Amino acid sequence: MNTQLKNQAMTAKAAASQMAMATSEQKNRALEALIENIQKERERILEANRNDIALAKTHGLSEALLERLSLENRLEGITQDIAAVIRLADPIGVVFDDESLANQLKLTKCRTPIGVLGVIYESRPNVTLDIAALAIKSGNCALLRGGSETLHTNRVLVELIQNSLSEAGLPKEAIQGILSGERSEVKELLQLHAYIDLIIPRGNTALQQFCKENSTIPVVTGGIGICHLFVDETADLERSLEVVYNAKTQRPTVCNALDTLLVHAAIAARFIPQVISILGKAGVIFRLDPKAYAYACEKSCTLAEAQDWDTEWLKLVLGIKIVENSEEAIAHVHQHSSGHSDGILTEDAQNAERFVKAIDSAAVYVNASTRFTDGGQFGLGAEVAISTQKLHARGPMGLKELTSYKWIIRGDYHVRG
Amino acid sequence: MNTQLKNQAMTAKAAASQMAMATSEQKNRALEALIENIQKERERILEANRNDIALAKTHGLSEALLERLSLENRLEGITQDIAAVIRLADPIGVVFDDESLANQLKLTKCRTPIGVLGVIYESRPNVTLDIAALAIKSGNCALLRGGSETLHTNRVLVELIQNSLSEAGLPKEAIQGILSGERSEVKELLQLHAYIDLIIPRGNTALQQFCKENSTIPVVTGGIGICHLFVDETADLERSLEVVYNAKTQRPTVCNALDTLLVHAAIAARFIPQVISILGKAGVIFRLDPKAYAYACEKSCTLAEAQDWDTEWLKLVLGIKIVENSEEAIAHVHQHSSGHSDGILTEDAQNAERFVKAIDSAAVYVNASTRFTDGGQFGLGAEVAISTQKLHARGPMGLKELTSYKWIIRGDYHVRG
Repeated sequence: MNTQLKNQAMTAKAAASQMAMATSEQKNRALEALIENIQKERERILEANRNDIALAKTHGLSEALLERLSLENRLEGITQDIAAVIRLADPIGVVFDDESLANQLKLTKCRTPIGVLGVIYESRPNVTLDIAALAIKSGNCALLRGGSETLHTNRVLVELIQNSLSEAGLPKEAIQGILSGERSEVKELLQLHAYIDLIIPRGNTALQQFCKENSTIPVVTGGIGICHLFVDETADLERSLEVVYNAKTQRPTVCNALDTLLVHAAIAARFIPQVISILGKAGVIFRLDPKAYAYACEKSCTLAEAQDWDTEWLKLVLGIKIVENSEEAIAHVHQHSSGHSDGILTEDAQNAERFVKAIDSAAVYVNASTRFTDGGQFGLGAEVAISTQKLHARGPMGLKELTSYKWIIRGDYHVRG
Repeated sequence: MNTQLKNQAMTAKAAASQMAMATSEQKNRALEALIENIQKERERILEANRNDIALAKTHGLSEALLERLSLENRLEGITQDIAAVIRLADPIGVVFDDESLANQLKLTKCRTPIGVLGVIYESRPNVTLDIAALAIKSGNCALLRGGSETLHTNRVLVELIQNSLSEAGLPKEAIQGILSGERSEVKELLQLHAYIDLIIPRGNTALQQFCKENSTIPVVTGGIGICHLFVDETADLERSLEVVYNAKTQRPTVCNALDTLLVHAAIAARFIPQVISILGKAGVIFRLDPKAYAYACEKSCTLAEAQDWDTEWLKLVLGIKIVENSEEAIAHVHQHSSGHSDGILTEDAQNAERFVKAIDSAAVYVNASTRFTDGGQFGLGAEVAISTQKLHARGPMGLKELTSYKWIIRGDYHVRG
């Protein structure tokens, strides 16, 4: 066991009760200090970030990863996001579910922080600040294990976060980076259930699977989206085309981008050629089932293979399948969805409600792009993850989803009969 | 891998979407049929139960375990509990957190079942019926892995549950027993994350630890209670004595029974001798810290050893410790509580609120016995477990705690800008 890692977890746990008792003012003061510190140390952050990028280039990282790694032109947006978290209501201490029992015992629940979060993520150093801000505001502590490719940037960011906590009179151990860059640390982190309450892996399927299999701490998995839209026979096809275009092309590299388009047979001949033409112009290539292949154009279409329906594309590829009816569409989603975001485009309210009832995904859409599944878009301010499991929280996880509760029972020297 | 176990999990998962769509009427009809079937097959149940008890005796099970195993004189109470679950509101399909965003997207959440529960428990065959009733009402499926000592009883009970499901037009695979009695099955069950959504271990620390360490499925741990009451210097001592008596003696073998009594130094000389005298008459023996030992009587008192403060007694033993102030009491609870049920007895509202704020246990009491931490007592109808972890649900878990939710987003062909 890595002694330093264990010590970090122990000091985070020790800081947890102080963070749980912190006032909203104190927590907001830490976040305000963080904004100031980022602005003051802007050049130092960017220099560290350029170091990481230079190193990443020598290691041959892809352009896409380099782009995710860069903070150039992003610090302004990040401080705005922190300011938005300051404006959100503090969830901690909120009392709910008041009840008075027949025996006059008074029951209520009170929102509490979860305690210590362990977050494992890659590349994007903005995640360090997003999660620190949400953790601080919700009275939680966090151990942040960013990828080794962001080591220099994260060292500076964690230093600024810790300074900001100290300036507000909060324990700097509340937010810590696991910054040695050693891979074995992840496995050790997953075993520290004596100190860590929740593991959030933000990364690919392999990371999520690894955490599920090796963690003795509860894990919230998510962020893998095999997303579907079903265009039924009543849909407004012109407007549906806009939604499909948006869902596939607006930001194809993210989890809520569209992967598979299901088209009702009755409108396939009118709709599919338009999809192929318009999305094709945006660079999309298509994987078509045999029936849809009747509308293929040579340039951008191939026949889909079986595993294509179980693929999260994360790029400009779209599967298209023709279905005979709603039931077939629902059955396809049941079989292939990752439970992230799936929707129907329809003018028929009954079709819409049947789809909504039958589909059990974190986000179920009627007449909207799947791209909205996002903490910011849903009004949560930000998100630490998008959960696709059913325990604790589902969909975008913001401040409230970083809380637990305790029961408070007030009596008059009540005894149980 | 045990093929039969995997098949059971697969068929439970297949039944889950049908259970999720079942109407309240259908689910209640299944529970009504279950009550009738228990009444009709009363003799067969009791005969199987007597078989189990006879076998358990040959295996030398303790009187306490034999008592937990017996259904003699309990079936009436069990059918009343099922009738109470029928009267509870169906949580599934309930819509909450309605919101209309600035862009006119309409967001709401809708309660859904979790899916497939895996429940691991020992002895008490009434748990089979408790959990089946809550699972059916909440639209969940469950794989029930009772102890091998209840094999004959559980075989009959699961048969009756499945018949009741069929009579209501629901899939009998929704509730299944894992009834081969082989120990290796538990470990295999914990790996079936493709089919099972939640593991609930109801048992001792060793079982909980085993599940935490070996499960790739989310686990809700709990039911281990090292419970404290702190009697402060303002408490009504006569009434406090009644509460302490109740918390320790009313049912000493359960998790919400009192383990450690913390007494403010200012009232120790008046209160502790009474506790020793009155609880001593009920057969309680005491483990006292050196200061409290000043009030020891020879018959029932010994000096506490360090590990006593970390022991869940589950019998008529009570630790007593004198503290100088609230802070010391709070610090002791922080260090030794299992986060189940802890309380203060006081006439001082400020002391009460400070304690409530500082103590982070599933149930925090002011002027009441810890024995109330129970799904039935809290008005949840029944419980599948008492969670002491902070994820998903905390304290008694009833119907609502067996649900997840999905986000439903309705738009007018909305696209993300």
